[in-house]
Amino acid sequence: MDYQRFFTQSLDDLRDDGNYRVFIDLQRNCGAFPNARQTDGAVQRDVRIWCSNDYLGMGQHSEVIGAMHDALDRCGAGAGGTRNISGTTHDHVLLENELADLHGKEAALLFTSGYVSNWAALGTLAAKIPGLIVFSDALNHASMIEGIRHSRAQKVIWKHNDLEDLEAKLAAAAPNAPMMIAFESVYSMDGDIAPIKGICDLADKYGAMTYLDEVHAVGLYGPRGGGIAEREGLMDRLTVIEGTLGKAFGVVGGYIAASAALCDFVRSFASGFIFTTALPPAIAAGAAASIRHLKQSNAERDLQKASVRQVRARLDAEGIPHLPNPSHIIPVMVGDPVKCKFISDTLLEEFGIYIQPINYPTVPKGTERLRITPSPVHTDEDIDHLVGALSALWHRCQIARMPMAAQ
Amino acid sequence: MDYQRFFTQSLDDLRDDGNYRVFIDLQRNCGAFPNARQTDGAVQRDVRIWCSNDYLGMGQHSEVIGAMHDALDRCGAGAGGTRNISGTTHDHVLLENELADLHGKEAALLFTSGYVSNWAALGTLAAKIPGLIVFSDALNHASMIEGIRHSRAQKVIWKHNDLEDLEAKLAAAAPNAPMMIAFESVYSMDGDIAPIKGICDLADKYGAMTYLDEVHAVGLYGPRGGGIAEREGLMDRLTVIEGTLGKAFGVVGGYIAASAALCDFVRSFASGFIFTTALPPAIAAGAAASIRHLKQSNAERDLQKASVRQVRARLDAEGIPHLPNPSHIIPVMVGDPVKCKFISDTLLEEFGIYIQPINYPTVPKGTERLRITPSPVHTDEDIDHLVGALSALWHRCQIARMPMAAQ
Repeated sequence: MDYQRFFTQSLDDLRDDGNYRVFIDLQRNCGAFPNARQTDGAVQRDVRIWCSNDYLGMGQHSEVIGAMHDALDRCGAGAGGTRNISGTTHDHVLLENELADLHGKEAALLFTSGYVSNWAALGTLAAKIPGLIVFSDALNHASMIEGIRHSRAQKVIWKHNDLEDLEAKLAAAAPNAPMMIAFESVYSMDGDIAPIKGICDLADKYGAMTYLDEVHAVGLYGPRGGGIAEREGLMDRLTVIEGTLGKAFGVVGGYIAASAALCDFVRSFASGFIFTTALPPAIAAGAAASIRHLKQSNAERDLQKASVRQVRARLDAEGIPHLPNPSHIIPVMVGDPVKCKFISDTLLEEFGIYIQPINYPTVPKGTERLRITPSPVHTDEDIDHLVGALSALWHRCQIARMPMAAQ
Repeated sequence: MDYQRFFTQSLDDLRDDGNYRVFIDLQRNCGAFPNARQTDGAVQRDVRIWCSNDYLGMGQHSEVIGAMHDALDRCGAGAGGTRNISGTTHDHVLLENELADLHGKEAALLFTSGYVSNWAALGTLAAKIPGLIVFSDALNHASMIEGIRHSRAQKVIWKHNDLEDLEAKLAAAAPNAPMMIAFESVYSMDGDIAPIKGICDLADKYGAMTYLDEVHAVGLYGPRGGGIAEREGLMDRLTVIEGTLGKAFGVVGGYIAASAALCDFVRSFASGFIFTTALPPAIAAGAAASIRHLKQSNAERDLQKASVRQVRARLDAEGIPHLPNPSHIIPVMVGDPVKCKFISDTLLEEFGIYIQPINYPTVPKGTERLRITPSPVHTDEDIDHLVGALSALWHRCQIARMPMAAQ
């Protein structure tokens, strides 16, 4: 077989379908977020980033940066081993304590990424609990899907955020089978929020464990940044809360928080946890500083909410369609992959605004969008600039007889 | 089902089998490696680490630490998104160029860890190439096994490092089937080295791709630290070279180096690459500095080799059994899980020497060992101290009628 030709042909097919991804080469300017310097071949330009998942700008917070500098000088660059073989540093222990406290759980377990935390925790729980049936929301993240798939446990997909469908499927399962309901709080692409209480009620009724992914909520919701479950007073009703250190907390890494026995179980059996080098102590120290700060400061959350409200109001005033939802994620709906890419390219080249187009397969065909994430680091001028540019492009595309899709 | 009881019971079973892992809480002292501060409840003690995979002590190298401080101040803590959505920084681009150059390949692709690089690259290649048969060395790392398993491709396991068995199995497969031979260069637990040239010859003969994991070799072998394949002039004969930034390079992360089309293919289809937050730019900058340094400096490699030779000679002089192998890994063979744990515990508590015991299931029963990794940061006094302590414990155990296993 001509392997090289197979790779080339597959990539050509991707290009033909409009699904080939080009990465934008950026350097975020610490202290001046959302400003970044883009390198595009020989060209360099200043851009304002409007699609970062560093939702609160904590990646440039002085306490986070300071903790990382300090840990670098104290402990060096890397951990030097797996958690079991010389790689558990005191900073990892402190971070896990911080995370357990954040979610009101007995324990927490750190992974190298949110992806790995979902893949390894779900993969291990679902593989090791004999006969477990996983009830998985239809829009769960790729990392959850891959973890459940890896486990080879029985999987039942229920309609997205639909309690009636979930109950019908729970009721149809063998009554004494071990069950787990796996879902997210804030869904990344639509920004909608799960009915957590209703899901927990069903879990109790049918004897199921609950596994809640709060990666787009931790740091952002709840009085201490514990997520939607904290805001709604439901943390104690969830068996596992999974989160990330790479979005609102501004660093990198993932975790689960749960009972001590559950965390110890995953710690002891998850291949993706055991056989991997631990995160650098500086990463752990930076994440812990970020969590500590957001436990006692609402300033960033308040500013973000105001920024989100303002962007929505300004988009409405211009008649630019965006999905209504109760979260901080604003999906501006374009509804056509070519126009979506064109608008994104033009925003970057003409206006210095960077918003990655979100096309199929990340979202269904016909719902192509610009996913905007306003943050405390965006100023009123940034918002003026953004809405002005979008408005001009909406106008230009209409002139060009490329009317935008309605919602 | 009583889930909590299931977890507790599983952990009790692990304890009963002697396989329950206790993590040692450490703080490595940057600038004074291999020294670290251990926290053990209320007790704190100074220890010398002899089991780190920061093989060359690069985790405290001033160029690495300096590059990380600089990138932190330039770009902030995290990348702020996936590689596709605002998370590709210029430091990532530079690091991938550095890695492609290291291995003489057209391109390289960065992952959040070595584990993820194997899992995602093997998982994607083996799932997507129609009908691919993977020929996997019997002692391949967990991350390779899980990646191949995840792909659901046909897998054929060949005897560890056995060319005859590999050829028999290649010859038995359908002649026109696409094939991949997946193996490592230096095997972590025995420290033995694969016959890379012979494997490449067989790959050519049977039309197979080759996938070589060099995680325990990159930075350490070859005139520029490109690994065993570089040392033996074989890099161009390998389809994929996989490596880590978390061992000899002293930071964290994993990668593959290969043709531009293959890297682009994995970049475009690997779920574990696409849907995960990019490594922090400071990590990328630190790793790139480490690679650049080790491309032009042999000092660390020479010192390490001298240290390994000296430890082996001193162990021989004391009659302490260790596996002979051509690498930098010295497995001191104990051959009994209880004794292995006892010696490790006593080294830590009485002598301030930290070497994690390696027991089943990481190694086969009866081959329990202390895996020692001498490095340029270990002094002559450290070696005296280590060998003296081991000798005393060997003696003590003999007095206690607990003779150590021979090799």
